[in-house]
Amino acid sequence: MKRDELFSLKPGKPDAEIKRASKDKWDKIAKPIDGLGELEEMISRIASIQGRVVPEISKKALIIMCADNGVVKEGVSQTGSEVTLNVATLMGKRKSSVGIMTDTGITDIFVYDTGIDSEVTPAGVIDRKIRRGTGDFLKEPAMEESECLKAIETGMAAVKECKEKGYGIIATGEMGIGNTTTAAAVLCGIEGLDPAEYTGRGSGLTDSGYSRKIQVIDEGLRLHRKEGYKKPATSKEEITGIMSSLGGLDIAGLCGVFIGGALCGIPVVIDGFISATAALAAAKLMPDCREYMLASHLGREKGMSFILKELELKPVIHADLALGEGSGAVMLFPLLDMAMSLYTGGTVFEETDIEQYERYDK
Amino acid sequence: MKRDELFSLKPGKPDAEIKRASKDKWDKIAKPIDGLGELEEMISRIASIQGRVVPEISKKALIIMCADNGVVKEGVSQTGSEVTLNVATLMGKRKSSVGIMTDTGITDIFVYDTGIDSEVTPAGVIDRKIRRGTGDFLKEPAMEESECLKAIETGMAAVKECKEKGYGIIATGEMGIGNTTTAAAVLCGIEGLDPAEYTGRGSGLTDSGYSRKIQVIDEGLRLHRKEGYKKPATSKEEITGIMSSLGGLDIAGLCGVFIGGALCGIPVVIDGFISATAALAAAKLMPDCREYMLASHLGREKGMSFILKELELKPVIHADLALGEGSGAVMLFPLLDMAMSLYTGGTVFEETDIEQYERYDK
Repeated sequence: MKRDELFSLKPGKPDAEIKRASKDKWDKIAKPIDGLGELEEMISRIASIQGRVVPEISKKALIIMCADNGVVKEGVSQTGSEVTLNVATLMGKRKSSVGIMTDTGITDIFVYDTGIDSEVTPAGVIDRKIRRGTGDFLKEPAMEESECLKAIETGMAAVKECKEKGYGIIATGEMGIGNTTTAAAVLCGIEGLDPAEYTGRGSGLTDSGYSRKIQVIDEGLRLHRKEGYKKPATSKEEITGIMSSLGGLDIAGLCGVFIGGALCGIPVVIDGFISATAALAAAKLMPDCREYMLASHLGREKGMSFILKELELKPVIHADLALGEGSGAVMLFPLLDMAMSLYTGGTVFEETDIEQYERYDK
Repeated sequence: MKRDELFSLKPGKPDAEIKRASKDKWDKIAKPIDGLGELEEMISRIASIQGRVVPEISKKALIIMCADNGVVKEGVSQTGSEVTLNVATLMGKRKSSVGIMTDTGITDIFVYDTGIDSEVTPAGVIDRKIRRGTGDFLKEPAMEESECLKAIETGMAAVKECKEKGYGIIATGEMGIGNTTTAAAVLCGIEGLDPAEYTGRGSGLTDSGYSRKIQVIDEGLRLHRKEGYKKPATSKEEITGIMSSLGGLDIAGLCGVFIGGALCGIPVVIDGFISATAALAAAKLMPDCREYMLASHLGREKGMSFILKELELKPVIHADLALGEGSGAVMLFPLLDMAMSLYTGGTVFEETDIEQYERYDK
């Protein structure tokens, strides 16, 4: 895919008429109006995205993008890059944290290697390796723009395959040591923010390690944003430029998943900070894209609430999660299932002696 | 149970040693430290409550207390009192909202009639009717103190039965038209708060209905708190006095459930505003009681965040829920199950080539 192809993609719009019909359906169920609050809203949004009043989300997928980041050489992480391969290997066996958390079968998991620094992709992981990790962004751009576009395309294709297999909703996840650094760099690059305010401690850092992380991001921004340093990006070219120079093959891949969700009419669930950064980039490349996104949780990383506010999305889980792998995104699934049970099987006022509640919204 | 018996009850303490061992167990699992945030903390608290590093929460119960409130005659609710019986009848058939939301069998449901205004308790509901609804608190005390104590005892007995049946965790729920009014009255009575600030719109009210609700609560407080009006309660006698004069048989019953949880060593999950008010009353009657409580969600009613802060509990679901019936409390269950899967089945660092993360907490 060429850059101009990406920039010219246009998704449809969620069906507003269906959203209204879905709200009516909720109000007919014997419960207080808006009783399930944000979950009612989410189900109605999913309905409008799928274009049917009763959406189908019984088949759920989690797409995980794994890739290494050259910037780890700069000492921004407690652990070394080899952990990406180690965890991806566990993921291939469904023995990583999220695999075990979803052992009830609530979701199928598709793990992608878009750039693990290994010769071979682990068993059970889908090989879409674009390169063996990115370059150290203090020395060179993390990747070529063509590689970034290829990662975006990989994400889009992953969603298309899910759509063809009948999945009704997709959660996003990632694994890549150093990716809270690349995500903070991309966020600060896109929005012109100060990394001292939007950088978190990732999987744990000493105070000096944390200072170093902020400094690395700041230097990277100076180097690659040049005259755009601390200024918000204003064009799509700048967005792909920032993702290429400072981002990662996991972030770019997930950006493609969000774009793919909009193009295929499938809701895509944001996980934590890295996933949210990818969602932000996708929304900058394709503004309507955000209408196909759902927030799951408010992670521990600092930039998270900024991004979700920017995307006008409300996370329903506030549990200070910081595990990655899509573990927070999949926690939304049982909540949506409970809401769907009520939506599809709830006793309606008509069947009871109870009068329907009136809506007194102004 | 006499008042003095209640006041002299003493629960044990959750086991601090087991909590530490549980934290260690979490840290050995191949994931970032505190990766599941508040959910790790909740599992460790449950472990310390149950007195075993690996707690047993596969059997879960929801206890729902149903009762009518005389104050509904004052026009504080959109619907009439008959809806309590109607919904309780649905609950008995597991066809009310929470019954349908948990049709996967994630929890067993025990519905209690502590004071529905009906001659007969509906089928499938446990008959512990103390009286047919409370009195209108603008005309008389809602109930006698002996009735309040009987409701508390009913809640305590309900937990004891659950314990004997092997349940490891209990969620709380309620049904009673008018109970956001009684709960706000009890909260404001206990804490000396202004009802104008802590009264919500319940299941929906017009602006004039809402003003009326605040006025009714304020008048009730003046009438029954007398010289204690707008002053916090300072004795246990005042707490039972407030619950008797302004509360409901659902609130008193749930207060007993929280007390029972502490006495039996079972964690009890707070649902929304009414349940939280009962939890607050329980914590005032038995301060250690709060260590056995878990918060689930931050409901829509105004007093909720005040109470949870007072109890030092963090709700993990922020979804603007206002359904009642324990529907928010049971949403915590699948999240705890996911966390438990990782806690019991997670790959430990020792089995991998990955070095355990270090804790850099200060």
